[in-house]
Amino acid sequence: MRNDPQRLRFEIDARDGRARAGVVHTAHGPIETPAFIPLATKGSVRGLESAEVAELGYELILGNTYHLFVSPGPERIAAAGGLHGFMSWERALITDSGGFQVFSLAHGGVANEVKGSGRSGDHGSQVEIGEEGARFRSPRDGAELFISPEVSMSVQAALGSDIALVFDECTPFHADREYTARSTERTHRWLGRCLAWHGEHGPERQAVFGIVQGGTHEDLRRESAQAVSEAGVDGLAIGGTLGRDKEEMAAVLAMTAPLLPAEAPKHLLGIGEVDDLLGGIALGLDVFDCAVPTRLSRHGVALAPSPETRWRLDMRKGRWVGNREPLVDGCPCSTCRRHDRDYVSYLSRAEELTAVRLIVVHNLTYMRELTAHARRAIGEGRFDAYRAAVLAGAAPWAA
Amino acid sequence: MRNDPQRLRFEIDARDGRARAGVVHTAHGPIETPAFIPLATKGSVRGLESAEVAELGYELILGNTYHLFVSPGPERIAAAGGLHGFMSWERALITDSGGFQVFSLAHGGVANEVKGSGRSGDHGSQVEIGEEGARFRSPRDGAELFISPEVSMSVQAALGSDIALVFDECTPFHADREYTARSTERTHRWLGRCLAWHGEHGPERQAVFGIVQGGTHEDLRRESAQAVSEAGVDGLAIGGTLGRDKEEMAAVLAMTAPLLPAEAPKHLLGIGEVDDLLGGIALGLDVFDCAVPTRLSRHGVALAPSPETRWRLDMRKGRWVGNREPLVDGCPCSTCRRHDRDYVSYLSRAEELTAVRLIVVHNLTYMRELTAHARRAIGEGRFDAYRAAVLAGAAPWAA
Repeated sequence: MRNDPQRLRFEIDARDGRARAGVVHTAHGPIETPAFIPLATKGSVRGLESAEVAELGYELILGNTYHLFVSPGPERIAAAGGLHGFMSWERALITDSGGFQVFSLAHGGVANEVKGSGRSGDHGSQVEIGEEGARFRSPRDGAELFISPEVSMSVQAALGSDIALVFDECTPFHADREYTARSTERTHRWLGRCLAWHGEHGPERQAVFGIVQGGTHEDLRRESAQAVSEAGVDGLAIGGTLGRDKEEMAAVLAMTAPLLPAEAPKHLLGIGEVDDLLGGIALGLDVFDCAVPTRLSRHGVALAPSPETRWRLDMRKGRWVGNREPLVDGCPCSTCRRHDRDYVSYLSRAEELTAVRLIVVHNLTYMRELTAHARRAIGEGRFDAYRAAVLAGAAPWAA
Repeated sequence: MRNDPQRLRFEIDARDGRARAGVVHTAHGPIETPAFIPLATKGSVRGLESAEVAELGYELILGNTYHLFVSPGPERIAAAGGLHGFMSWERALITDSGGFQVFSLAHGGVANEVKGSGRSGDHGSQVEIGEEGARFRSPRDGAELFISPEVSMSVQAALGSDIALVFDECTPFHADREYTARSTERTHRWLGRCLAWHGEHGPERQAVFGIVQGGTHEDLRRESAQAVSEAGVDGLAIGGTLGRDKEEMAAVLAMTAPLLPAEAPKHLLGIGEVDDLLGGIALGLDVFDCAVPTRLSRHGVALAPSPETRWRLDMRKGRWVGNREPLVDGCPCSTCRRHDRDYVSYLSRAEELTAVRLIVVHNLTYMRELTAHARRAIGEGRFDAYRAAVLAGAAPWAA
């Protein structure tokens, strides 16, 4: 770990058990934690303008290095003043390394497997992984592209994010122990190369988070946590597979989280369902990115205090006809203040664009409320009660 | 014409040649004219919440009776407090009669033909038109539906619009004089039936506009204008084909507009391109609905002061790469204040949802600026100069 307030300063304001409320100070302002991080995958958050995302209360969003590398490319974004300038986002930005997407091509949909489907695809031919990096074909025009620790860091330098993530191999659930062990070691060598490149060429105020791999194996996670902690990173992220199902994920996280340095900001990659996020907070993790809340909006699904349906309310169901309630009673979002389920459901079934907007505004408000109230509960020493209430079906603002 | 301020009051504040600046007072507030009317075809304006449409300065939007009749149906909307309640729109609403869409099915795409393609389709089998009304199959589930003057008015009563349009047959360009003459006469009989139904069952504060048909034939337009004016309507709309191209349209409008009573509010149906709209204003027409400004946004096309490209800027073209200008210099919309062509173009090509939003906000702002500045120019007695400047390529706010 390094401690360079020019890049990043993490201040822990309150602790409650292992949960903590903090502030990450970046070159583009503070981020109150715990925080959910909306995805701006290709340079925009699903249907929203940047200014609207800020109005929803978000201080940090995530841009995808892989997608932005493929199109429009780092040169064009650099010419616009980095991703901040390109998308007119004035607050903090984190970028992933591109590894996750590239290795999804190789391993056949890691994205699903991380959540436990465990099925292997046969996409290996699309990606060639070697010590140097990964070679793959552009999904856009078939051109051969190459990504390596150095390329990833240089792209992230061009994007100018406040926090860059090191280039790692995201091992899938179906990888065996031996593959995972070798991959994790390579990830550590790549970590060294990332930091070497960044030390020489990286933007002065860009922080770098290392990624702890090791799959579901305690010894590998321990080694990885140690290797990453000892490197000169500004924070840590937990990556790779967390197991086959939610129970295994909880166990892997419970085992991994305590291995990380207490004072470092900690990012749980790709996890953001309500119960998982609260579980992560309880373990002392600070920031959480996830595609689910924004992706659901495209499919007409609103977040709601409904543990029995994994906090999902499918607005495309016919049963909402004539329902005069808001998506969630008491929700402060503009959708819930102005519209009822009857209307949102009709628009969703009619596949009207406005439905996506109404739901994404709600879902992002819901996630913001969830973390903001978690933060308050931590400050007041009642996080366990808050978590229990939410898990039992209370709305975040009522728990 | 009837004059019932309980339903509708039209006040002409200023005249400049035949152009006029007025205010239409409805049960849901005033509409400053000339006005462009955005389409809320299926109960929402392309990707925008109702509150946002009001924030963009619009006082009147148009709901499509045909679409809302097919789904979700008038009962569901009535149960929500009418279309105002259903979509939480607090300002004025106009509904068309459903005739245009039904007869498009019959005549093979009137929508295109009105603008002059003149090709006939072979969709007659889908719709059976008789004296009583039109029978057609629901595009949703194939169920047989029937629409007549009485059905149209009862649906519009359920929708609770401030202005209902009478049920007419929208004759296409390829119809011959004889068909058009017979159809126009039937439209007049239907007008009588509409007003009879409305007189007995219509909402007290709902105004009714009659539709002048007659195709491109002066004598038929004259007869129709007279028939509609003599009926007890609150305003008039010009419908049906206006010819094969923009020149013929201008001639048909120049011939038809003076046939309408001077003091009545006048609606030009389905026309809203920049030059056509200014032409309509010059002829004393007051309100204009059109799908183009909202539809273009789905295709990545922004409105701009560019007469040579019909005021269209195709943001999907590669030439915008690196362009740091806003869509239109000086445009007061949030898109132009915050984003450049480089970014909007990238999002459009990437088919990101946010592109549609950024462009629809711009396009609707552009149309509002066009009519707001036309209104001001009329008040200042310089509408001809304003129109000439816009036609020569000036932005509305600079003309």
